Amino acid sequence: MSIIVQKFGGSSVANAERIQRVAKRVGETAAAGNQVVVIVSAMGDTTDDLIALARQLTQNPSRREMDMLLATGEQQSIALLAMALNEMGYAAISLTGPQAGYHTDGIFAKAKILEIAGERVKQELDNGNIVVVAGFQGIDAIGDINTLGRGGSDTSAVAMAVALKADVCEIFTDVDGVYTADPRVVKKAWKMPQVSYDEMLEMAAMGALVLQPRSVEIAKQYGIKLHVRSSFNYSEGTIVLEEVTMNENIEKEYVVIGVAHDMNVLKVNIFDVPDQPGIASKIFSALAKEKVNVDMIVQAGKQSEYQEISFTTGRDDQDKVKKVLDGLGLINYNLDGTVAKISIVGAGMITNPGVAAKMFRILADKGCNIEMISTSEIKVSCIVAQEYVKDAAVALHTAFGLDAE
Amino acid sequence: MSIIVQKFGGSSVANAERIQRVAKRVGETAAAGNQVVVIVSAMGDTTDDLIALARQLTQNPSRREMDMLLATGEQQSIALLAMALNEMGYAAISLTGPQAGYHTDGIFAKAKILEIAGERVKQELDNGNIVVVAGFQGIDAIGDINTLGRGGSDTSAVAMAVALKADVCEIFTDVDGVYTADPRVVKKAWKMPQVSYDEMLEMAAMGALVLQPRSVEIAKQYGIKLHVRSSFNYSEGTIVLEEVTMNENIEKEYVVIGVAHDMNVLKVNIFDVPDQPGIASKIFSALAKEKVNVDMIVQAGKQSEYQEISFTTGRDDQDKVKKVLDGLGLINYNLDGTVAKISIVGAGMITNPGVAAKMFRILADKGCNIEMISTSEIKVSCIVAQEYVKDAAVALHTAFGLDAE
Repeated sequence: MSIIVQKFGGSSVANAERIQRVAKRVGETAAAGNQVVVIVSAMGDTTDDLIALARQLTQNPSRREMDMLLATGEQQSIALLAMALNEMGYAAISLTGPQAGYHTDGIFAKAKILEIAGERVKQELDNGNIVVVAGFQGIDAIGDINTLGRGGSDTSAVAMAVALKADVCEIFTDVDGVYTADPRVVKKAWKMPQVSYDEMLEMAAMGALVLQPRSVEIAKQYGIKLHVRSSFNYSEGTIVLEEVTMNENIEKEYVVIGVAHDMNVLKVNIFDVPDQPGIASKIFSALAKEKVNVDMIVQAGKQSEYQEISFTTGRDDQDKVKKVLDGLGLINYNLDGTVAKISIVGAGMITNPGVAAKMFRILADKGCNIEMISTSEIKVSCIVAQEYVKDAAVALHTAFGLDAE
Repeated sequence: MSIIVQKFGGSSVANAERIQRVAKRVGETAAAGNQVVVIVSAMGDTTDDLIALARQLTQNPSRREMDMLLATGEQQSIALLAMALNEMGYAAISLTGPQAGYHTDGIFAKAKILEIAGERVKQELDNGNIVVVAGFQGIDAIGDINTLGRGGSDTSAVAMAVALKADVCEIFTDVDGVYTADPRVVKKAWKMPQVSYDEMLEMAAMGALVLQPRSVEIAKQYGIKLHVRSSFNYSEGTIVLEEVTMNENIEKEYVVIGVAHDMNVLKVNIFDVPDQPGIASKIFSALAKEKVNVDMIVQAGKQSEYQEISFTTGRDDQDKVKKVLDGLGLINYNLDGTVAKISIVGAGMITNPGVAAKMFRILADKGCNIEMISTSEIKVSCIVAQEYVKDAAVALHTAFGLDAE
């Protein structure tokens, strides 16, 4: 008998009809002879609605009280899903995060899971129940409710899979897997049957937020097989695992497994930054305090007693960035919202020198000027003018041998 | 420093504006130098909305899952009220029923409180916090959430007052206290400054559901002073306590302290009931199973081998009553929805013989025929034709010396 953890997001349980569809899917998995634990998020817009309600009372809600409030969303989903399963004749029981044994570190709004005391879950599985667990939440040492932050239900699911030594953790989404590129832009993109944890992490960091990066890290650490698949159909999705194996779809070893692009980029260049210790820390701490999500950071080599620091963020953070830079007395800077990011990802890069060079050459061949570069061991990202991005994605997909036959 | 428990019902916290009003009231009580614990219900229609959502999935929801679902309503209220208090500058913290230490007996949907482990609440009070607690809920021995049933928040409040040895438990409602009669009918009715627990219990049983009867029982058992008052104004309400003391408003000892009437009465007469042991048990068990709330029950002395059993219930139970009686093969019965109930209540009756006789005489003087009578030590209720009820209420109020000067 296999143990399967399934995770359904908020849009999958947005109303009674969708909850019934999820119940059917979950029930079938159990009826096929598996022990099933289901992790669910809050229904549709519930979280946003609760936040709006809180905002009517205060602009600065205590994080503790916000967690107390938001945790109710998942608690409603689990009760309703358990009812739907019961109605279809499946034995099922719901458990809140605290009841399911998620012990967290007491950091409200972005808690980390310390451990899962999974006795109750195991006992309910042994009783023949499908166990429906509230994602996104846990309990700290003094008995307070913590939430894991947005998207935390992925992490809840993977952590439960670790605790139960589950055979697979299925993440149901509204896409049917991980693609080599955005199929709306690159016509020859295809769904990858497998990707490695590291590749998935880079894809996530690139904006393809199919999975919460933290959940992939935990899966990698404990070797939990993830299966990213559609909640709308029964086709196989993408398996995320340590080492991608050969199979009928992967006849050759790919060096690059995916091309991603992101149009929502604000490029910030700060000139005349005094070349003194601590200045970068000061800038990025101030940005973090304003909750500006900084993506790429590039600091050019020093040419004088002043230097240039560049970074990228989302375009909607433009006002906050201005406020922070003005506040720090940095007057000579430039904001550019006409750029986009194009990236290639692949674990094979590590052992294949020249991958970045090849990417730069292909962009140059298209007449495309590169404004910023950032690399990791398995990823190269370039900031270019928006107008080149789509062509570049198609060209890179072809050049790295990714086009479907 | 006094310890005060305050309870606000669902309509008092139905939206952000009302939550702010409650916060102001609670904050003022704390600012006056008291330690305050606030018990709140779910916002307005939340509970009904959640029930409707569940009904979309199943007609027979598991009680366990229903409790899991409904408990979220109070959890939302406490978080929001704590936020509102914080925003006004008051230190406050919310606690769910389980966090506040309500240990219940595991009977879903109508649990009883076994004990309150009040350490966390005491600790938060000592930390200078106003403690906002979710009413209506507790946790059982295996960690499942139980609810106390509708109106259970009154019981939550009184039980917390017991656990903390509170000086008073204030119940805020949309009326400003307990009246000698319904002021809409009896113009000379007045708000009683004090009533005894027993009188309050009889008033509650008579349909004046200002307080959940169970909460009054607990208050009586532990001698907790209750204060029923309006959430809309600051006037003194009605104090419920063991022995009513003399004060400026009560210059004389009243024998009867209240006249109540209830227009929503269905009178059921069952004729030709075989005079054999167990028949009454069979009838009323079957009615209970259909959740028919039976009020008065009268069985006349036997005249033959058949006898007559009469009882009253609410008019909306008419269909269920028919179904039960037909199901038991009782064919000779009569349902009458044209009657009403008029009652007098007063602890003084015990030591004043002739109170019931006086009531019957006053009704007779009005030309009003009595169809059923039911008495307790401190209450007499009569079923009469609806048309007489309002006149009778006024006449009884005058005859028992209750009219305001």
